[in-house]
Amino acid sequence: MALDPMSPGKGQKRAAAGNDCSSIHGNTSRTGVFVGVDVGGTTISVGLVDEQGSLISGNNNSYNNSNNNNSNNNNNDSNNSNNNNNDKNAGVQWESLGDDHDPKQLAVRVRRLVDAALSEAGRVMGDVVGCGVCTPGLLDHERGIVRVAANLRGWKEVPLVDILSKEMGMERSRVVLEHDTNAALLAESWSGAAAGLRHVVLLTLGTGVGGAILSDGRLLRGSRGQAGEVGHAILVPGGRAHGSAGVDGILEAYASATAVAARAVQGLPASSSLREVKAPIECVDVFRHAAAGDEYAAGIVSDTAKYLAIGCINCCRFVDPEVILFSGGMAEAGEQLLEEVSKQFELHHWNIEAVRVKLCLAALGRHAGLIGAARAAQLAINRA
Amino acid sequence: MALDPMSPGKGQKRAAAGNDCSSIHGNTSRTGVFVGVDVGGTTISVGLVDEQGSLISGNNNSYNNSNNNNSNNNNNDSNNSNNNNNDKNAGVQWESLGDDHDPKQLAVRVRRLVDAALSEAGRVMGDVVGCGVCTPGLLDHERGIVRVAANLRGWKEVPLVDILSKEMGMERSRVVLEHDTNAALLAESWSGAAAGLRHVVLLTLGTGVGGAILSDGRLLRGSRGQAGEVGHAILVPGGRAHGSAGVDGILEAYASATAVAARAVQGLPASSSLREVKAPIECVDVFRHAAAGDEYAAGIVSDTAKYLAIGCINCCRFVDPEVILFSGGMAEAGEQLLEEVSKQFELHHWNIEAVRVKLCLAALGRHAGLIGAARAAQLAINRA
Repeated sequence: MALDPMSPGKGQKRAAAGNDCSSIHGNTSRTGVFVGVDVGGTTISVGLVDEQGSLISGNNNSYNNSNNNNSNNNNNDSNNSNNNNNDKNAGVQWESLGDDHDPKQLAVRVRRLVDAALSEAGRVMGDVVGCGVCTPGLLDHERGIVRVAANLRGWKEVPLVDILSKEMGMERSRVVLEHDTNAALLAESWSGAAAGLRHVVLLTLGTGVGGAILSDGRLLRGSRGQAGEVGHAILVPGGRAHGSAGVDGILEAYASATAVAARAVQGLPASSSLREVKAPIECVDVFRHAAAGDEYAAGIVSDTAKYLAIGCINCCRFVDPEVILFSGGMAEAGEQLLEEVSKQFELHHWNIEAVRVKLCLAALGRHAGLIGAARAAQLAINRA
Repeated sequence: MALDPMSPGKGQKRAAAGNDCSSIHGNTSRTGVFVGVDVGGTTISVGLVDEQGSLISGNNNSYNNSNNNNSNNNNNDSNNSNNNNNDKNAGVQWESLGDDHDPKQLAVRVRRLVDAALSEAGRVMGDVVGCGVCTPGLLDHERGIVRVAANLRGWKEVPLVDILSKEMGMERSRVVLEHDTNAALLAESWSGAAAGLRHVVLLTLGTGVGGAILSDGRLLRGSRGQAGEVGHAILVPGGRAHGSAGVDGILEAYASATAVAARAVQGLPASSSLREVKAPIECVDVFRHAAAGDEYAAGIVSDTAKYLAIGCINCCRFVDPEVILFSGGMAEAGEQLLEEVSKQFELHHWNIEAVRVKLCLAALGRHAGLIGAARAAQLAINRA
């Protein structure tokens, strides 16, 4: 999925009007700032976020990636394809995660990125009100601990908030840890596609299907922090095997970008134009060829949309959101995806009332995580 | 389903220790009382509830059904089979709903039942702190309005809280409306099988499958009051037709008592002992014959348990509860149901961690609704 998550297609639907997807403004105010940190599977990104959820760009509004040479072979993140696309990264400092995942070393690197972001924006550490960090994996949000994260080698019960607050010289209570999908949802309901809404589901359609749920303005965490794992809900009893969790027929097996690519390869007929794809077929190819009229690809797209729509119906039955947002690789298919899913959603919707939930694309792209991490910090500090 | 919901089988599992299912005590204290009202599909029940969630019984601890002659042909509720079973209804006044569903008339009848309950308990209206009323149907909880309820003929946008508070001579702010399934969950997490727990799902397995979700101690309502409609989640895409909502393959089509009976009838082979059932086959017959060794009945029970277990898995993925409670007709199968569902739950559980959610039977039986309605009043008044 090499498409640019910061560039939604023309005319894409948004749940809330007036939200520019970039959410970036110049350094015009001197109010407090929040640091958002996104420790992803392949990248560490840091940004300064104002109290309204906008990224604070540097004085010259330029993109500063001083650590670009830190890239290594592990880095297959789509960021790499946008290194020179400055506007979209204004105010964001990032570097490749690299091979050294030692938590303390990582904190040192985060601190360096924070310093660079502050300097770029003409700010100092004293301006920082709070810092939020998001990661994938199983977290203990309350205690600020990463219990385990597949992409962070060796991480087991890592007290990330302790480590990071020390490195940043900040009070521990001003640093918070949030799950990356939850952070993305917090960002979208702060300054993104669901700004101001209180009942929102976010589905990330990428390697897997991640989920996060905002209900009455609060993130659903559940009794063990596992609420919102919508991608692991069983959609087809006895259905497709997928992934390593040992359960067949989960939503992820039908509605992840990975699953779409895998299904396309499996039954590929000689007649399909997908045969012309040189590299391994990706989800984006399937959507592109479907749009260009390939019947086989169109069948997979429509089938995927059906299962995704059923997953959305179930989101409505469980938590009754105002809007369901799609992000991640497959969401790049934009209007094409929304139209297909909306059509299928209507078909599987009950007759008790007309469809009222909105299906929309997320707006904040790859920076949603760090913006939402900053939001998590703001919320925690406001509550305290 | 004529079994007695107040009599869980010996050894039935409970999520929280120390909760006696009856939750009834004598009139030993003079603290404030709450009135709980349950306007069901066939019965109006009223009870006085103390601040700990226990029914307050009358001085003579006897069952007083002064309006029993109000029964009519519409009344097929299992209450009728227990008219003489005094202990189980101690402190509860009830009468058949009858044919006249006029909201104002109904409020007059509720007031009469409240007066009888107060008199029986040696209390007066001045002792009443608040009143909660629960009904089925689509509600506007905030505004205290029953938007529509299939079993309450002619009810459309009925301002039940206005009507009832006037009839009771109570401040409007002390009367609250709650959905019956939500009320049952509030009751179970107050003084029932999930007492003190903050993450609970309740599934009622009866004519349909109702659902209610408590997350971090709060009822999930969703953006339009439709959260928790787990019975209408799609479980098998393209699966069994069921009910009138126009969606195939919903959980209700597999895990309701009605569905179990319907499936048993459909494929009934000559060899099955279910052939000996004289009256129309009910869910309880299927479970009883399965327990007695009938292979066909056992197959249906195990199939039902499988789908119910998958529904429970999905509850875990969406909201991650500590406990899932079963109530309603099918829950009467008790240990037999729990064992089958737990076995199937294990089979469909991910390998990310061991099973930690508890599957349990609800404890408060048919009075859960009115106890929970009283709880809703207590919570609303405490919040104000």
